[in-house]
Amino acid sequence: MGKRVALVLAGCGVFDGSEIHEASAALVHLSRAGAEVKIFAPNIEQRDVVNHLKGSPTEEKRNVLVESARLARGNIQDLAELKAAEFDAVIFPGGFGVAKNLCSWAVDGKNCTVNEHVNSTLQAFHSAKKPIGLCCISPVLAAKVFPGCEVTVGQDKNVDGRFPDAETASAIAELGCKHVCKNVNESHVDKANKIVTTCAFMCKAPLHEIFDGIGTMVQEVLKLA
Amino acid sequence: MGKRVALVLAGCGVFDGSEIHEASAALVHLSRAGAEVKIFAPNIEQRDVVNHLKGSPTEEKRNVLVESARLARGNIQDLAELKAAEFDAVIFPGGFGVAKNLCSWAVDGKNCTVNEHVNSTLQAFHSAKKPIGLCCISPVLAAKVFPGCEVTVGQDKNVDGRFPDAETASAIAELGCKHVCKNVNESHVDKANKIVTTCAFMCKAPLHEIFDGIGTMVQEVLKLA
Repeated sequence: MGKRVALVLAGCGVFDGSEIHEASAALVHLSRAGAEVKIFAPNIEQRDVVNHLKGSPTEEKRNVLVESARLARGNIQDLAELKAAEFDAVIFPGGFGVAKNLCSWAVDGKNCTVNEHVNSTLQAFHSAKKPIGLCCISPVLAAKVFPGCEVTVGQDKNVDGRFPDAETASAIAELGCKHVCKNVNESHVDKANKIVTTCAFMCKAPLHEIFDGIGTMVQEVLKLA
Repeated sequence: MGKRVALVLAGCGVFDGSEIHEASAALVHLSRAGAEVKIFAPNIEQRDVVNHLKGSPTEEKRNVLVESARLARGNIQDLAELKAAEFDAVIFPGGFGVAKNLCSWAVDGKNCTVNEHVNSTLQAFHSAKKPIGLCCISPVLAAKVFPGCEVTVGQDKNVDGRFPDAETASAIAELGCKHVCKNVNESHVDKANKIVTTCAFMCKAPLHEIFDGIGTMVQEVLKLA
């Protein structure tokens, strides 16, 4: 029997939703491992809609669940309906949508609020001792919800210009969590909290290295499940 | 030196644009092979905008180049600017957007018209004897533009219920082309025309099998480049 894994999306597109290649990579690795995957997203309006060609916000309104359905090929459910009892693990791909739609990190940093259904999902898996996988900026969700946990968002310095958002590591430390420096092809496993993180696009790396790094995260999550 | 490959998108989402996981898979395999990739899409309005949660069209208007930029993380150019002389190969992922935005196959079948920049791109690579890779429904572009060529869209019968769109193979034959039956993990190489095709999501298969099939297409394209 394959492990039952919930994947939580935040839209469709790196600048206002889920990072597409991170979400796809997670799904490829989960498929190869024989996992049974169901996909969820909150049924809320996006914080903004970014024209990804120009890199600037537009006047448009889009819904996180509806746009996430593009990544899910229509096979998706409202996050409010997720029952942790029906799954062995949960995974959150990254992208700015996590920091805009799943929590308010993009504007509030470590003082952010977390969407109620995201918060209850994280709490439910954590208290059931079921693993939680996160990549890219998503580890800030764990840092905010589980003070004292260990996560990685890559390096805490902008090594070789590859980690331009290295200050995220300091913000995580200020939340009372331990930031662990890892390369893009590695994951960090917080065994006590069953939280597995990898930096993905927080590192300026070729796409296949990000793909492989997400593979290590998926495999560690399934091992803990 | 890595091979220089142009990737042509048709939007962002299986029902009205490029199939996201096919596009991402092609980019992962190209990255691993060390290819230098540039991404293009036509600067035109989408034929329609489909609510991927409901599966039904909406009243919205979206632009193919702007939506494709989500897949390209903003690093994309107007297809009108693509110069075949600057590339060794071109690849077209699939998705209904190919049949709606790059040509009119979705409404006109084998009597479809092909977008002028898509047509000139295909003609330019073909006459320069540079390889063209296509997957899913994209092989109909080659079948329409290069009568007599050989392509696969999977099987010509709905084997085990896995090929619900098997009639596409007949339409390709009616265009004077040869349809070659292949499984999802295989590609067909038309050596004379340097056209490489794989069925991808034309087959109801687990995502990692589609990922691997696209890998064989990318590798055959790079061998011919």
